Amino acid sequence: MNISASSPLPQSIDNRQWLLERYPEGVVGPEHYRDRIESLHTELASGEVLVRAHYISVDPYMRINHSLKPTYNEMPHPLGTVQAAGVVAEVLASSAAHLQKGDWVEGMLGWQTHARVHHSVLRKLNPDLAPVSTALGVLGMPGRTAWFGLTESGRPHAGEVVVVSGAAGAVGSLVAQFAKRHGCTVLGIAGGAAKCAWLKETLGLDHAIDYKAHTDAQALSDAIKSLVGGVDVYFDNVGGSVTDAVIPLINRRARIVICGTISQYSGGLDQPELGPRFLHHMLYQRATIQGMLARDYAHRMDEMLRTVGPWVKSGEIVFEETVVEGFEKLPATLNHLFTGDHRGKLLVKV
Amino acid sequence: MNISASSPLPQSIDNRQWLLERYPEGVVGPEHYRDRIESLHTELASGEVLVRAHYISVDPYMRINHSLKPTYNEMPHPLGTVQAAGVVAEVLASSAAHLQKGDWVEGMLGWQTHARVHHSVLRKLNPDLAPVSTALGVLGMPGRTAWFGLTESGRPHAGEVVVVSGAAGAVGSLVAQFAKRHGCTVLGIAGGAAKCAWLKETLGLDHAIDYKAHTDAQALSDAIKSLVGGVDVYFDNVGGSVTDAVIPLINRRARIVICGTISQYSGGLDQPELGPRFLHHMLYQRATIQGMLARDYAHRMDEMLRTVGPWVKSGEIVFEETVVEGFEKLPATLNHLFTGDHRGKLLVKV
Repeated sequence: MNISASSPLPQSIDNRQWLLERYPEGVVGPEHYRDRIESLHTELASGEVLVRAHYISVDPYMRINHSLKPTYNEMPHPLGTVQAAGVVAEVLASSAAHLQKGDWVEGMLGWQTHARVHHSVLRKLNPDLAPVSTALGVLGMPGRTAWFGLTESGRPHAGEVVVVSGAAGAVGSLVAQFAKRHGCTVLGIAGGAAKCAWLKETLGLDHAIDYKAHTDAQALSDAIKSLVGGVDVYFDNVGGSVTDAVIPLINRRARIVICGTISQYSGGLDQPELGPRFLHHMLYQRATIQGMLARDYAHRMDEMLRTVGPWVKSGEIVFEETVVEGFEKLPATLNHLFTGDHRGKLLVKV
Repeated sequence: MNISASSPLPQSIDNRQWLLERYPEGVVGPEHYRDRIESLHTELASGEVLVRAHYISVDPYMRINHSLKPTYNEMPHPLGTVQAAGVVAEVLASSAAHLQKGDWVEGMLGWQTHARVHHSVLRKLNPDLAPVSTALGVLGMPGRTAWFGLTESGRPHAGEVVVVSGAAGAVGSLVAQFAKRHGCTVLGIAGGAAKCAWLKETLGLDHAIDYKAHTDAQALSDAIKSLVGGVDVYFDNVGGSVTDAVIPLINRRARIVICGTISQYSGGLDQPELGPRFLHHMLYQRATIQGMLARDYAHRMDEMLRTVGPWVKSGEIVFEETVVEGFEKLPATLNHLFTGDHRGKLLVKV
């Protein structure tokens, strides 16, 4: 045992947790969770680490895994267990040689204030590179999703038109900036004039369109067409009528990246809504739709960090975070992902 | 002038033609065409060839190009002109050195009995390889579509499950056989018990399902699932509710090839019908949808013929043809593509 704690820890500590209690049928919220205080013993087996959470993530994928149908996992998130989530934490004690008290780590530790885990599930962070909270955003899962989704599935080229839905969100706001760096003309779609102003003025996109300002998919489609003509890469985070508006505008050999369909998550995965058939456009334009998940690139974090890390350190990438304070706010903050008005990465500080 | 005709041709000949007269809104038929006899002079400029049609094609793509919206072409088929179509013809006279009277050729000559064209638009046929009519089927555009659509977009591997819709049609019946040769388990979907029996007994597919015997997409989906579990490659010729049934069954990294959406051609391209949203399945399975058109592989006919030609010559590939006799039957035969009960390639002999 090689615990690096400089002051002795109590034999056990109170670990606050949020457990998934019931599956939502519509929008997820506090009524689907219950809190609990677990007594967590602090004795470490060889290789174990005790950590205290500082930033806990809420992400759209969580709602997918509340669906009772098979999704990206065969089975839904188990009831009565801690909500799975990415967490940035501080090491309180370690029996792993490469981690010391006071180090920062990131891992899938769930909605709880503390955890005792094997070191192999933790990623050690470099606080000099960027604020540690970015390990849940631009230098974490959303950044990886944006980078590999755009570069490997979207395959953008200079001079092409890239349209991003959910462009003010954690992934979309990065995709849009990465596409600009590729030399593309970038149009972001978001909800509300304030988000659109931010996309143009702060992120430097060529165009931004408020989908809420258009009465239907045809009106939105006309607005997009008037700005960019056609679309070479559509990076889709939202699905639904926004996607209905974009697909008829695809250019020859367009690449459509399905990264998310958040407009459908609050019920539509179990009972799909109806939308206009569009596969004929795929035929006409010999276009591609590619679904992607962050997990397929988990083993390639180093590649993303090598490229994007320096941009973050030098301030060349805007990585907005919306930080909510308080462990008790986690379920409500998850709800706000689907109903709220945040920009960039939504996080809870605990 | 080096005309190879052994007996003198009259100065002009009667050329019967079918002109597109009106655009269909629903199913296309004789009421959208008018016939005409043109007097075609027979004097050949250098490089020109005079031909007489023997087999004239009817194909689903024709109906796409009757749509008033942009499709694979920016503009619809012009009214008052000969319906564009592939034709197998006999050379009556030639001023091109490599073509002689009596040779067989194939080209996009349209619905007419004769044509005088530059030799460069004609492909010379080898009647010893297979019946010349196959230049409109297995050794022509449908064969090319099936071969490259399956191999380049479908990318099947031995042991995988390939599902083909429109499996008794010109393209589908070839895709299904090509997939069998790749070592795949092949399930064909077609309309009617007779077609399904043919798919299993004559084409040797592992499974055949009559979509008309199932009340809705869910019942069809259940039937497919009970036979093959999941789907690695879905080669889609039909779209609509058949496709609704297949997509929820895709396996991880499935490839969906959109070769046609014939169920939607009789009006649905102009006014899309509604169907269940399905893009979440693309996300879960990280699957791909790829639209393809035969024209993108026109310059690679030699590759297809090198592989498929010997199989046709040796009788290893079943290439059924449904041949209707009579030039006057062309519009009605096109109509039967969408309403009828043919198997394999539908042709008109003139």
